[in-house]
Amino acid sequence: MWSVKDVYYISGSTGILAANYGQALISQFPEIAFNEKTFPFINSVGLAKKTMKKILEYAGARRPIVFTSLVDPKIRDVFDSTEVEFIDIFESRLSFMEDILECKALRIAGSSRQADTVMLRERVEAIHYCLEHDDGLKTNQYNQADVIILGVSRAGKTPVSVYLATQRGLKTANFPLTSEYLGIYKLPDNILPSRMKMIGLTTTPQFLSNIRDKRYPGSTYSSIATCREEIKQAEQIYQQYKIPSIHATGQSIEEVATQIVHELDLSNQKRFL
Amino acid sequence: MWSVKDVYYISGSTGILAANYGQALISQFPEIAFNEKTFPFINSVGLAKKTMKKILEYAGARRPIVFTSLVDPKIRDVFDSTEVEFIDIFESRLSFMEDILECKALRIAGSSRQADTVMLRERVEAIHYCLEHDDGLKTNQYNQADVIILGVSRAGKTPVSVYLATQRGLKTANFPLTSEYLGIYKLPDNILPSRMKMIGLTTTPQFLSNIRDKRYPGSTYSSIATCREEIKQAEQIYQQYKIPSIHATGQSIEEVATQIVHELDLSNQKRFL
Repeated sequence: MWSVKDVYYISGSTGILAANYGQALISQFPEIAFNEKTFPFINSVGLAKKTMKKILEYAGARRPIVFTSLVDPKIRDVFDSTEVEFIDIFESRLSFMEDILECKALRIAGSSRQADTVMLRERVEAIHYCLEHDDGLKTNQYNQADVIILGVSRAGKTPVSVYLATQRGLKTANFPLTSEYLGIYKLPDNILPSRMKMIGLTTTPQFLSNIRDKRYPGSTYSSIATCREEIKQAEQIYQQYKIPSIHATGQSIEEVATQIVHELDLSNQKRFL
Repeated sequence: MWSVKDVYYISGSTGILAANYGQALISQFPEIAFNEKTFPFINSVGLAKKTMKKILEYAGARRPIVFTSLVDPKIRDVFDSTEVEFIDIFESRLSFMEDILECKALRIAGSSRQADTVMLRERVEAIHYCLEHDDGLKTNQYNQADVIILGVSRAGKTPVSVYLATQRGLKTANFPLTSEYLGIYKLPDNILPSRMKMIGLTTTPQFLSNIRDKRYPGSTYSSIATCREEIKQAEQIYQQYKIPSIHATGQSIEEVATQIVHELDLSNQKRFL
């Protein structure tokens, strides 16, 4: 077994897909330490050769792993050498797609971004909406939201909201369940018309207490008792208003966001790479 | 040639990688319309069979394309049917990796997220930092930033900042170059100690004018003359303080962000899928 391996992600565009693909594979080998580096925007044979030279110089006696998402065969072939472990993440799939679709592929790097003009505007608008409607701001504009996330303080509303806006182009607001609402088990009247777009976050008292304690160590706010009580009250509010809820403990931002999209059926599959 | 094709992304985790992978391929065929749907969290043979049944019922006479990132062979094989065009995005790569690394793969879905406890905290902190330091807020805390983005109004600072925080876990602040600084070609003294972490955004007067005109149609603010002048002044400020700059026109958020990471050498390859 190798203890350390050098891994390179080579792309004609940002390299995000090649890196995510490679990371999904190498994460299946937790015992090995990987040194990773991305070379984005490799868009000429000259630049490819210079990059390959750098990789080989650094490699010495070790054989590095090279993942590429290059679709131009001339540039791609520069890296397809016996001196490296070469993994073309698309390999024969583009030809396979050409066969089944009975149509020629463009073979242009980053063609998935071509659609971006409209989507860029949508994402930018969603991000600005999200920032302007974070933490209960401007509830009078909730009618424009695609989704409204509820939760007690530090339940993770803001990160998930920002993710949904940035990666999905969804106008996401979030509303904090503070003691003023928790105590009376009620949401303010003016946000109720948007109830169908709401989703509640919940977590365990222990998890919430840990997070709060980093902010205000030893406080009543961060005590298990307060956290347990607030979570119980929040969950009762969700039930009462028939707001679906998601248990966020131990989940990544992507996992919570994916569940929200599916729970509220927001999956219009926007292509943000 | 097909004019329409149904495409499914099946995953044991969020399905984000399978969808991004499939979208990179189908975007190479702009003449064909694709109906896309993700089925995330397919973590049992039973759920896989139910999902496959749904796909086949909907398909009728059309053969849908099924992309999977499933690593559990029993679940994966449910979709490997002659009734669909089956594309396992990893296929033999996991075995190939086992060979070259001389080590067994975990074959656990979403194992790339296992590392997330530390990274989740880092990302959450970066997102909160980003929101609290948007648009010139709290410049006295710039010493804690990983990167500070400069630019005139509507140059795209906020979306890129939010992206860097969310997807890269970088504490990103952004500072607006308003007339108060543009007019005297100077940055405020108190942010100068952080100059090495700064990057400037620039764009074309036409592009900026279009964006501003959507906000304030026909205003002096959105006129080509104002935009040209402000961009010229901003670029002079970048030069004067030796702040590297990036031309954002026609680029996606990912592309601008990737250039910033490489320009400032921030690529510590955090694994956010």
